[in-house]
Amino acid sequence: MEPSSLRDVSAPGRVADAGEGIGADELALAARNHGLPLEALRYDVTPAGLHYVLVHYDIPEADGEAWRLSVGGSVRTPLDLDLAALRALPAVTRRVTMECAGNGRARLAPRPVSQPWLVEAVGTADWTGTPLRSVLDAAGVGSGAVEAVFTGADHGVERGVEQDYQRALALPVAEDVLLAYAMNGAPLPPQHGYPLRLVVPGWYGMAHVKWLRDITLVDRPFTGFQQTVAYRYRQAPGEPGVPVDRIAPRALLVPPGFPDFMSRTRVVRAGPVRLEGRAWSGHGPVTEVLFSADDGRTWTPTDLAPPDAHPGAWQSWHTEWTAAPGRHVLTARATDASGRTQPLEPPWNRGGFGNNAIQRVRVFSR
Amino acid sequence: MEPSSLRDVSAPGRVADAGEGIGADELALAARNHGLPLEALRYDVTPAGLHYVLVHYDIPEADGEAWRLSVGGSVRTPLDLDLAALRALPAVTRRVTMECAGNGRARLAPRPVSQPWLVEAVGTADWTGTPLRSVLDAAGVGSGAVEAVFTGADHGVERGVEQDYQRALALPVAEDVLLAYAMNGAPLPPQHGYPLRLVVPGWYGMAHVKWLRDITLVDRPFTGFQQTVAYRYRQAPGEPGVPVDRIAPRALLVPPGFPDFMSRTRVVRAGPVRLEGRAWSGHGPVTEVLFSADDGRTWTPTDLAPPDAHPGAWQSWHTEWTAAPGRHVLTARATDASGRTQPLEPPWNRGGFGNNAIQRVRVFSR
Repeated sequence: MEPSSLRDVSAPGRVADAGEGIGADELALAARNHGLPLEALRYDVTPAGLHYVLVHYDIPEADGEAWRLSVGGSVRTPLDLDLAALRALPAVTRRVTMECAGNGRARLAPRPVSQPWLVEAVGTADWTGTPLRSVLDAAGVGSGAVEAVFTGADHGVERGVEQDYQRALALPVAEDVLLAYAMNGAPLPPQHGYPLRLVVPGWYGMAHVKWLRDITLVDRPFTGFQQTVAYRYRQAPGEPGVPVDRIAPRALLVPPGFPDFMSRTRVVRAGPVRLEGRAWSGHGPVTEVLFSADDGRTWTPTDLAPPDAHPGAWQSWHTEWTAAPGRHVLTARATDASGRTQPLEPPWNRGGFGNNAIQRVRVFSR
Repeated sequence: MEPSSLRDVSAPGRVADAGEGIGADELALAARNHGLPLEALRYDVTPAGLHYVLVHYDIPEADGEAWRLSVGGSVRTPLDLDLAALRALPAVTRRVTMECAGNGRARLAPRPVSQPWLVEAVGTADWTGTPLRSVLDAAGVGSGAVEAVFTGADHGVERGVEQDYQRALALPVAEDVLLAYAMNGAPLPPQHGYPLRLVVPGWYGMAHVKWLRDITLVDRPFTGFQQTVAYRYRQAPGEPGVPVDRIAPRALLVPPGFPDFMSRTRVVRAGPVRLEGRAWSGHGPVTEVLFSADDGRTWTPTDLAPPDAHPGAWQSWHTEWTAAPGRHVLTARATDASGRTQPLEPPWNRGGFGNNAIQRVRVFSR
């Protein structure tokens, strides 16, 4: 078929007009995909069904018994592995916080039209699998190989381009990734990549290829859609842009008290309130979380837990706040070991990526 | 506090203006709650994480070991049961299709402002628990009792009213319900009511009280918020309205081919296509599912499976379609044994309940 006809059903990316409400297309994505209900920040490890989910196309129908992972390209020995073969390799479990690169997109103005996340596209799981290293050692990395291209079984069209979902990692980065077949001690749920996915600690979700069916080593940088068209920080269309990669720092607060159904405003009894939350960054440990009860005008330090045994996972923090009767806007702000910190106002880009502006929790105290 | 101050954070229900896009409040609900990704209609039993979820307030923090179910009111012997006591009672497993009463709300014009579902707020699970009958027999139903009131642990404000989530059932209906502690053979996930919930086969989701902590038998009909204010079919505010109860018939199609990311339009190869889906009703078995490939102008019968061993669960159906190149709108229409059928245009009411108008799946064939 002519490329133009696929473009008829698959429009180019766009930015919403000023004041344009969320459209039917964005709503259809929001109804399929979902964030972490913020009260679920209470769990060290997110129960699988509460972890954020973003699926580009359809969740593929997968038969774990028949599943194969092919490993080819610039390798000495191409491999064709079933799950039993992967399970026979050295197994490790890593606790990893994962966040969608588009988290915060719907709070941008103007709003890039895509999955309309607010602040909740995050989760932390214990992922079990074998290091990619085990498989690459078995295959033998070719001397000219520079990147590994990971292909999922999910197939669709995006911005006029028909594709299997594919992303690549430079080999130095690929050293530290996991081929995961279990989440929180159980086989992967369908929406999280059953039976096999990539886990790339510290990177936004687009790198953690789900329903992983092929790894191909290449001698030149991969130029596929998800690498060079999507997932770039750009101010204007047509710019080459900067690749989206590691997770920018963010702190989230467990909303205190109880909510109003529709406004999600929190109702809190006046007096001392213990507040807690999580903070994370893909650029290193979080070194400080500040708290503000006056919408960012004044800040106080919080008690932040060290990263401990789980360097890829969020850190918990807590503080005490004395709620005076009335309305308040609570927020927290994380800074990491690289010196990166959360902006008070959303950093805009055309794809709506990496908006780690501070969360704002509206509270009514009485 | 004055009721008026809670009303400040909890506005009355409203209907969107003509052309008003989905607002930030509706989006916050859509980001928390989620529907069944329609390709998951392929599973007879929905994997727990893909089943639709609607939580009015917060998912409560629950400790299964410490959990108690109190049974009181108009009974001879009030009970205080832990999970072990409930598990020691006769156990049954029932396959039940559950649907949110607000499914279809966002397709209404004008749109009632609440959780903005399209068509996907459904799922089918194997629920294991003990019949309510076992517990009522142990407690002894008082001679004047007419209803059972079920109270969940979720607490919040809604339309200015602070409340624990509560719903009642007339005792004849309550005979056929389940106190469920397992979903698909595992403990309930937090978002589905851990550790205990009500399952009311054939009724919309609002009746299936989650995080169930109390059952109180009453001698007069319950008049709580979720019974007499919310969940009523009304054309105008202030009307007493008609209670929302059993699920209206609906058929959904597994969208064929593969999707465009943003428009969700399906791309299908021209030629013969096998189409399949599910159909259900709370008013009796589905007796017919018709299929249309021309947006409802002409209809053909499909092959519909009998309800078999699972009278509370959806039935599968399938048909063959020969896709000509071009654009099509596919739809299906279910009729049940009570004679109820799906309308072609949405039936409007102020709460946006029970909109079972036919699904429309846009397909581009090539």
